[in-house]
Amino acid sequence: MNYQYWHRKVEIMPRPELEVFQLERLQALVDYALRTSFYAPKLRAAGIKGSDDIKSLDDLKRIPFTTKHDLREGFPYGFLSIPKEEVIRLHASSGTTGAPTTIYFNRDDITRWTGYVARSIYGTGCNHTDVFQNMISYGLFTGGMGFHAGGEEIGMLVIPSGSGNTTRQVRLMQDFGTTVVHATPSFLLHVESIMRAEGVSRDSIKLKRAFAGAEPYSEDTRRRIEELLQIDVYNSYGLSEMNGPGVAFECQCKNGLHLWEDGYIAEIINPDTLEPVPDGETGELVMTILCRETTPILRYRTRDLTGFYTEPCPCGRTHRRLRRITGRSDDMLIVNGVNIFPSQIEEVIMAMKDVGNNYLIEIEKDGVMDKLTVKTEIGPDIFMDDSRPLNALKERIRKTIQASITINPRVELHESGSLPVSEGKAKRVYDKRPR
Amino acid sequence: MNYQYWHRKVEIMPRPELEVFQLERLQALVDYALRTSFYAPKLRAAGIKGSDDIKSLDDLKRIPFTTKHDLREGFPYGFLSIPKEEVIRLHASSGTTGAPTTIYFNRDDITRWTGYVARSIYGTGCNHTDVFQNMISYGLFTGGMGFHAGGEEIGMLVIPSGSGNTTRQVRLMQDFGTTVVHATPSFLLHVESIMRAEGVSRDSIKLKRAFAGAEPYSEDTRRRIEELLQIDVYNSYGLSEMNGPGVAFECQCKNGLHLWEDGYIAEIINPDTLEPVPDGETGELVMTILCRETTPILRYRTRDLTGFYTEPCPCGRTHRRLRRITGRSDDMLIVNGVNIFPSQIEEVIMAMKDVGNNYLIEIEKDGVMDKLTVKTEIGPDIFMDDSRPLNALKERIRKTIQASITINPRVELHESGSLPVSEGKAKRVYDKRPR
Repeated sequence: MNYQYWHRKVEIMPRPELEVFQLERLQALVDYALRTSFYAPKLRAAGIKGSDDIKSLDDLKRIPFTTKHDLREGFPYGFLSIPKEEVIRLHASSGTTGAPTTIYFNRDDITRWTGYVARSIYGTGCNHTDVFQNMISYGLFTGGMGFHAGGEEIGMLVIPSGSGNTTRQVRLMQDFGTTVVHATPSFLLHVESIMRAEGVSRDSIKLKRAFAGAEPYSEDTRRRIEELLQIDVYNSYGLSEMNGPGVAFECQCKNGLHLWEDGYIAEIINPDTLEPVPDGETGELVMTILCRETTPILRYRTRDLTGFYTEPCPCGRTHRRLRRITGRSDDMLIVNGVNIFPSQIEEVIMAMKDVGNNYLIEIEKDGVMDKLTVKTEIGPDIFMDDSRPLNALKERIRKTIQASITINPRVELHESGSLPVSEGKAKRVYDKRPR
Repeated sequence: MNYQYWHRKVEIMPRPELEVFQLERLQALVDYALRTSFYAPKLRAAGIKGSDDIKSLDDLKRIPFTTKHDLREGFPYGFLSIPKEEVIRLHASSGTTGAPTTIYFNRDDITRWTGYVARSIYGTGCNHTDVFQNMISYGLFTGGMGFHAGGEEIGMLVIPSGSGNTTRQVRLMQDFGTTVVHATPSFLLHVESIMRAEGVSRDSIKLKRAFAGAEPYSEDTRRRIEELLQIDVYNSYGLSEMNGPGVAFECQCKNGLHLWEDGYIAEIINPDTLEPVPDGETGELVMTILCRETTPILRYRTRDLTGFYTEPCPCGRTHRRLRRITGRSDDMLIVNGVNIFPSQIEEVIMAMKDVGNNYLIEIEKDGVMDKLTVKTEIGPDIFMDDSRPLNALKERIRKTIQASITINPRVELHESGSLPVSEGKAKRVYDKRPR
C-alpha cells in the first residue's frame, strides 16, 4: 500500500525526537497553565513555578489529574490563559455525561486544530479530488466545524450537510458524487436502512469511505457498515476537552487509532489506583493537550477505557495507536451485581446477519432484581408474520448475549425501522431503575 | 459619531475609482463565466467572447438576465467555472421559493466573502472585544458559517450557538456576556418573549447590538425589537446566490444598507418592462457578483423589491444604500383582486403597543371570495378574560389594516406565546386557497 502523510516529517518522526518536541511544548503549556486561575495554585503547590521546573516528560506526573468536575467548577473562565479579548471562538461539549464544558480558542489554536484534523483525514487516503459530506452537527459541537475545516484544508469539496434529514443526505450523495462521509456509526446504519427502504441502489452513489466517531462502537458494527455500504470505515476519536476531532484516527491499516503525540500526551492509568498500567494493558485514558494555548488542560481523566498497541504500525507513523474505545468507565452498568458494558451487547447483535441496524437496552427493577431487556430490530428481509424462525432468532440472541455477559436478558424483536432513531449521538441505554 | 472602516480605502473610495474597479472585476468575471456551460453560449450570442469585449460597465446590459429557474436548470454544474477538484465548499439555498440552488466556492472565494462580512459587522461599531452569539443555522445555509467567519476575522469571541433552543440561547448570553447577536427578526422577538416569560432581567445580559436578516421585516419590527431589548438592530441583506450574508448591511447611521459595490453590481429594474427604473425609485433588484470566481452569476433577478437612497450617507462610505427590502415580488398576495404584501400587515401590527411579538396571515376561499384572517398575539400584560378592551383592540387592528391594504380582514387575538414559532425563517403566510 502507498501511504500518504499530510505532515510527513512529524508523522514519521523517530520517537526520541518526538519526545523532545513534546517536552518543549509541555514547557510552553505550563507557562500558559500558570496564567489560569485553576492551575496556578495547583502547579505552584506542586513546585512548578515556570517552564524551567519541567525538565523531563516525567515531571508531568507531579501535576495532579484534572476531572470533568474540575472543568465544571472552573466554568466559565477558570481555565482561560489569555485575555478574553484575544479569544475568537468557543465550543461547548454536548454534555453526554452532565453539564456542558466550554473550551476557548485563539486563531493559532484553530489553525493547529485544523492541521490535526487534516492530517487525520489525509491519512485515510483522501485527497483534494474527494467530495466530503460532513453529516454531523455544526455549531457548538466540535464535530461539524472541526471536520469541515480539516476537509477544506486538504482541498476536498466539503458539503456541510449537518446532522439529520436522512433522505436529503442520500440525495446530496447522489447529486454531488460524495466519496467520503463523516457521521456517527448509528447514523451510518440508519442511512443504509433508509437507502434500502427507499430503493436507492448502491450504484447511484460513489461512496468509498466513512469516518465514524462521536460515540463508541464495536468492531462488528464497523464490519456491518462496511459490508452493507461497501465502503471502508475509519475510526475517529476526539473529545471536546481536547479540541474535538483530530485527537486520534485510524490510518489506512485500520488497526488502531494513531494518537497525535506532537499535540497530545497520553497516559493510561488504573482508574482505581490511579497508577499507570503496564504497556499495552487497558485502563483509563488520561490526556494533556499540547497544541492549544488558550485553554490548557493537563492530565485530563477522559473516563474512556483503552490501551495502546505495542507493535509498530505498517504505515510507518511513529505515533502510538490506541485500541478501539469500547466505552467510558461512566457507561458501565451494574446489573444484578455484574459489571457490563453496552458495547458487549452491541458486539453480539451486530455480528448477527438476521438482526437489523438498530437496538436498545432497557434496565428496570423487577422486585429486588434488575431486569435487562434488549430490543433489536430484525433484518429487513425477515417478516414478522412467521413466528417460528423469529422465536429461534430470539433464542439465539438471548443465548449469545448470556454467554458474553453472564446475565440472561429478555429479548424483544421489532420490525425493521421501528425503533426510535437519534440523529446525533445514539441513545441506546435506558436505565429506568430508581436511583 | 466616530465611524470605523474595516477596508477603509475601498469603503470610502470615490465613485469614479470604484467604477474602474468594478469594470476590471467584471472583465475578469466574464472570462470565468465563459468557462461555464450555462453562460458560454449566451455570452457568445451577445458578442462577448472575452474580457476585451467588455469595454465599459454599460456592456453589462448586453448580457441577458439570469433567473432562479436558470439556476435550477443548470444544476448541478452548469454554473461551475473551474474544475470540480478545485472547489472546497458548496452551500445550498434554503429553498424559500422552491428547489434549492447550489453555489461552489474555492479558497479565494471564501476569503473574499469573509472580508465582506467582516466589513459589514465592523461597520456597525463592533470590534475584537465583542462577544458575538450567532443564533442562526450552520451548515448548508450560508448565514451560520458566513457570519461566523466574518466575526472571527474581526477577532470577536464567536459563539456558534446555531438556531433554536431559545432558553439555552438566553443562558449563553448570560454566561458569556454576549454583546451582539445575529438572528432572524422573528427569533429576536421570540427571545424577548421567552426572557420575559422566564423572568430573565435585562440587567443580566450585556447585549448591545443585533444583526437581523434572512427574512424581510418592517421598520416597525426593528423599532419594537430595539425598544423591547434596549439594543441597536442593524439590517442585514444577503442571498445565497450572491454568497449569503455580506452583500448589503447597515452602518451606524441605520438608514439603508450599503451595498458593497466593489463586490457586486446592482441594477434596479421594472419587473414588467425589464427596463431600469429612474434613480431612487423602487423596482426589482438585479445583481452581478464580482467577488466569486467559482460560480459566476450575472444579472441575477433577485425578485426582491427595493431602490437606492440618492443622498450620500453621513458615514462617508461611497457605496450606495439600498432601502429596506419589504418583500419579494414572489411574496405578493392577490386577495380579491387586490395586490398586498405581508409586510404591509406586519407594519400595522408591530406599531401597536398592545399587540404581542408573533402573528400569522391566513387566506382561504369563502365561496367565490377570498377571506383574509390576521391572527395576532396580544401583549403579555393584557389578559384574555376581560373581553371589552380586547374587542376594542381587535377593532382597532382591523380598521388600521383595512386603511393600509383596503381589504377588510378578520382579526383573531391569541394569548401571548400561543401562536407557533419557527426557529429559522418565520413562516407567516398560510395561503390555503386551492391552486
